[in-house]
Amino acid sequence: MEMSNEVNHTWRLARRPVGLPEPDVWSYEQEPIPEPHDGEVLVRNHYISLDPAMRGWMNEGRSYAPPVGIGGVMRAYAAGRVVASRHAGFAEGDHVVGLLGVQEYARASGDAVFKVDPEVAPLPVHLGTLGMPGMTAYFGLLEVGKPAPGNTVVVSAAAGAVGSIVGQIAKLKECRVVGVAGGPQKCEYVVAELGFDAAIDYKADDVGRALHEHCPQGIDVYFDNVGGEILDAALANLALQARVVICGAISQYNNSGPMKGPANYMSLLVNRASMTGMLVSDWLPRWGDAAKELAGWLAAGQLHSREDIIEGIEAFPDALVKLFTGENNGKLVLKVGED
Amino acid sequence: MEMSNEVNHTWRLARRPVGLPEPDVWSYEQEPIPEPHDGEVLVRNHYISLDPAMRGWMNEGRSYAPPVGIGGVMRAYAAGRVVASRHAGFAEGDHVVGLLGVQEYARASGDAVFKVDPEVAPLPVHLGTLGMPGMTAYFGLLEVGKPAPGNTVVVSAAAGAVGSIVGQIAKLKECRVVGVAGGPQKCEYVVAELGFDAAIDYKADDVGRALHEHCPQGIDVYFDNVGGEILDAALANLALQARVVICGAISQYNNSGPMKGPANYMSLLVNRASMTGMLVSDWLPRWGDAAKELAGWLAAGQLHSREDIIEGIEAFPDALVKLFTGENNGKLVLKVGED
Repeated sequence: MEMSNEVNHTWRLARRPVGLPEPDVWSYEQEPIPEPHDGEVLVRNHYISLDPAMRGWMNEGRSYAPPVGIGGVMRAYAAGRVVASRHAGFAEGDHVVGLLGVQEYARASGDAVFKVDPEVAPLPVHLGTLGMPGMTAYFGLLEVGKPAPGNTVVVSAAAGAVGSIVGQIAKLKECRVVGVAGGPQKCEYVVAELGFDAAIDYKADDVGRALHEHCPQGIDVYFDNVGGEILDAALANLALQARVVICGAISQYNNSGPMKGPANYMSLLVNRASMTGMLVSDWLPRWGDAAKELAGWLAAGQLHSREDIIEGIEAFPDALVKLFTGENNGKLVLKVGED
Repeated sequence: MEMSNEVNHTWRLARRPVGLPEPDVWSYEQEPIPEPHDGEVLVRNHYISLDPAMRGWMNEGRSYAPPVGIGGVMRAYAAGRVVASRHAGFAEGDHVVGLLGVQEYARASGDAVFKVDPEVAPLPVHLGTLGMPGMTAYFGLLEVGKPAPGNTVVVSAAAGAVGSIVGQIAKLKECRVVGVAGGPQKCEYVVAELGFDAAIDYKADDVGRALHEHCPQGIDVYFDNVGGEILDAALANLALQARVVICGAISQYNNSGPMKGPANYMSLLVNRASMTGMLVSDWLPRWGDAAKELAGWLAAGQLHSREDIIEGIEAFPDALVKLFTGENNGKLVLKVGED
């Protein structure tokens, strides 16, 4: 058992945030490195994934997953290397991904982590395009959005970890793809580098008018990561029988006031359209097959993946806030160790 | 060609309403009785249907149907008798239903009206349980809501023309049925006379808490006729994989301010649920079969239909307002003639 640190550094949730998580919601701890029990592995985390869903996990109250407890290590996906195994399926040196938390060392049930192959792609990609965000894009678009060739697909947070993959898969499925993103760089990126047909800068453009211009036949599939006014603008521009995929609502996660509901929801009636919520964990049994298909597209150069890597576990609180202020470029991950 | 009047009385839209339609939005006219052209019939209307959708038809702007033009006869379903026919499919004396307008005599294409049999049910029933509202309930519940035996079905405006049929069909399909209605009489009616399992009085009860009590396993199908706070309360109480049918939003139709969007829509994500809009006209080719099944249930005493009949075409503006203030008891129709 080889270790790069004598101790385990952890970020624990000290109190529940109101609005954007301020530094005082966290406590940074030095702790003994845990010992794996029977059926468990000890993982040295190399990369910690920063995802919008983490904000929801910090709130009290019923959701699809229980909240992180006060005093608990913050929940996060992470990728790392097995440094000790008491599970027959894993050996020291295996690379794995799982909900390993914002810490350097994680003790986890072998049944709750997945082996990944760093030869297929670098570890950060296994947290992004080949990980939870990629799976979210893949199943949310294909299974819930059900795009047909020639359909117009619109995706918000288009330069983000999920949105960038949604748009590229939609292009592979012969759709017209319009992205909504914040700022000229992100808009340029999704069109020039990812091949979207058009991009709308929600910070500069009238999104409703721009959607009307870029989607003259209406929107067949709207993949929503943001909620709020962009969701309303999309609803106002639906085509008949449109499918709205509710994947997230990042514009609303740090609201301290009431949630903004989509005032234009009656467009669902006018257009006989549907709005359906999705959670990627429902497709867990099919993640392996989806990852293979996505890896094939990556290898063939048909899918582009971009990671925004921030160094050092100390940077966690600031890095998480960057996700909500839209300062990241690509899948945001925190590098906390290496081989 | 027999006629009971020398003239045709019509209600025309004089201006677009803001909020509840005031009397000054209408003009009441005496006009010559029109002559049918080739392919048309002339119908003496006996009953005019008053439906919530009419409020939407009075607004300017894009919807599923064009707005009624300023100066146009108000659009409405009506049932009456053919008094002159220049269409091979109809003879004088046939009873028909169609979008014949708020007037005593209507000239209409024979392709746009349907023959109905007054032996099967009185004409007002052909505007309610066997007409558009019944079709809305039938297809909205069965095709969009897709209730399974044992499911919990909640319907708002439960004592209304659509809601009362939704709940009764859901009972026939072996569901647990909870209605939301305004006032103790309507609640008593849906439970004691229509056989619902429970009713919630939205004027007296905390709807969210009451839904939580009456739907301990969550709501599998919510059939929404009202929008607003009741929709939000239902969203907060969904079961996994729930289906929300968006049929109407009567609480919002007379808003002069902005539409209230459902703030709890992220419950769709948490519960992997869907919210789907429906328009009954999409099932037009299957109306005949549905009407036969509904008529069978009526004849067998398995389905109860109640009509609230107001006398006289002069009463139209006040009668329409009753629909939005919830003063009607059962399907609201205006009697404007007889055989």
